[in-house]
Amino acid sequence: MTTATTAPGLEQSPAWSAALYARVQQFYARQMQLLDLGEAERWARTFTEDATFAVPTLPEPARGRAALAAAARRTAAELAAAGQRHRHFIGMLDVRPRPDGAVDVRSYAIVYASQTGGASQVHRVCVCEDVLLHQDDGELRVSARTVTRDDLA
Amino acid sequence: MTTATTAPGLEQSPAWSAALYARVQQFYARQMQLLDLGEAERWARTFTEDATFAVPTLPEPARGRAALAAAARRTAAELAAAGQRHRHFIGMLDVRPRPDGAVDVRSYAIVYASQTGGASQVHRVCVCEDVLLHQDDGELRVSARTVTRDDLA
Amino acid sequence: MTTATTAPGLEQSPAWSAALYARVQQFYARQMQLLDLGEAERWARTFTEDATFAVPTLPEPARGRAALAAAARRTAAELAAAGQRHRHFIGMLDVRPRPDGAVDVRSYAIVYASQTGGASQVHRVCVCEDVLLHQDDGELRVSARTVTRDDLA
Repeated sequence: MTTATTAPGLEQSPAWSAALYARVQQFYARQMQLLDLGEAERWARTFTEDATFAVPTLPEPARGRAALAAAARRTAAELAAAGQRHRHFIGMLDVRPRPDGAVDVRSYAIVYASQTGGASQVHRVCVCEDVLLHQDDGELRVSARTVTRDDLA
Repeated sequence: MTTATTAPGLEQSPAWSAALYARVQQFYARQMQLLDLGEAERWARTFTEDATFAVPTLPEPARGRAALAAAARRTAAELAAAGQRHRHFIGMLDVRPRPDGAVDVRSYAIVYASQTGGASQVHRVCVCEDVLLHQDDGELRVSARTVTRDDLA
Repeated sequence: MTTATTAPGLEQSPAWSAALYARVQQFYARQMQLLDLGEAERWARTFTEDATFAVPTLPEPARGRAALAAAARRTAAELAAAGQRHRHFIGMLDVRPRPDGAVDVRSYAIVYASQTGGASQVHRVCVCEDVLLHQDDGELRVSARTVTRDDLA
């Protein structure tokens, strides 16, 4: 994916637009807020039905909304049991529309963790590489996500 | 306010626009920079005259520009005396225009603290829920703000 | 530069636009990703040929792409040798076009550091003041950058 970030001048292509950039920002804001609110089913619906989600700690990507929602529910329950809150803060979005209308987005994702009655701190620093698709209902959804963690080799 | 974040598809409503999204981002950038610069009066003028500001550590919301400016001056003096700087970093803005033209914005606010000659760290992780109003002078201003802290139950 | 952040209402000037705001965000996303990827030459080309870059730890600003690229290469090598990764996370952009077409941008820059096999944390909290120029090839480039660090007096 490195090459995707190094070609100069793509923001000048006809497909890149300020309107798309703002929509993508709004998309991530809502998606991450749903996750952090523990709204697992609604969060899962921000992915396509058969979306893949690859993380470095699993040998295979998770696939499909049911698996994603189950993972989100599990994490929400673990955090609640531990008296912790997580916030996923996405930024530095490099938005690159493809000729076929899909949108490649490479962003930084900082995860903050707070302990109830305790301190807040940086939990993870990640890079998030997504493929977003325009859907028939007018929404953007993630069809493929690959997350890497800066603390892992 | 949870429901405000879970209705799907509102970015497709006629009222949501990329132009509004960028304006709201620019608004928060200037507002928080004024606060962190200790420009208490100018910061207070980014709120409506009778704005309310609720935080979890006060039993009642602060109300009105004079009270807000006084609180900002007090905090600026305390930080200066302690050799500290704060930066308020807002992001993940979920921007939802209402039919009446007001704009609900739910965002994440990370406060960083740096000690002169020392270290920088995460100080607070907050959620900020604002009502923004379009004003006759063409500006946006906050009429009501509610801040919650992730480290408090 | 303080005054640049305090004049009210400049986002209402004809020159400020949501389109410019999004372009500036996209510019920083790509510029910082190139830096963090160690793409020193390509990163240097996001500055004008004779750009200046002032930091508090050097008595004189660095000047020109060759000097910038050399500094970026040196930092990338040092981080790799130490098993560390840095991410530059820019936000809170106050974007102020000048009448001559140059664009003043004052932003916050958080630098996160992660140790391979270890923890991630806030490394630096900085303020970044840039002059961006529209170039003949349609790109924005930085002609002058001044970075301050919150942990230094």
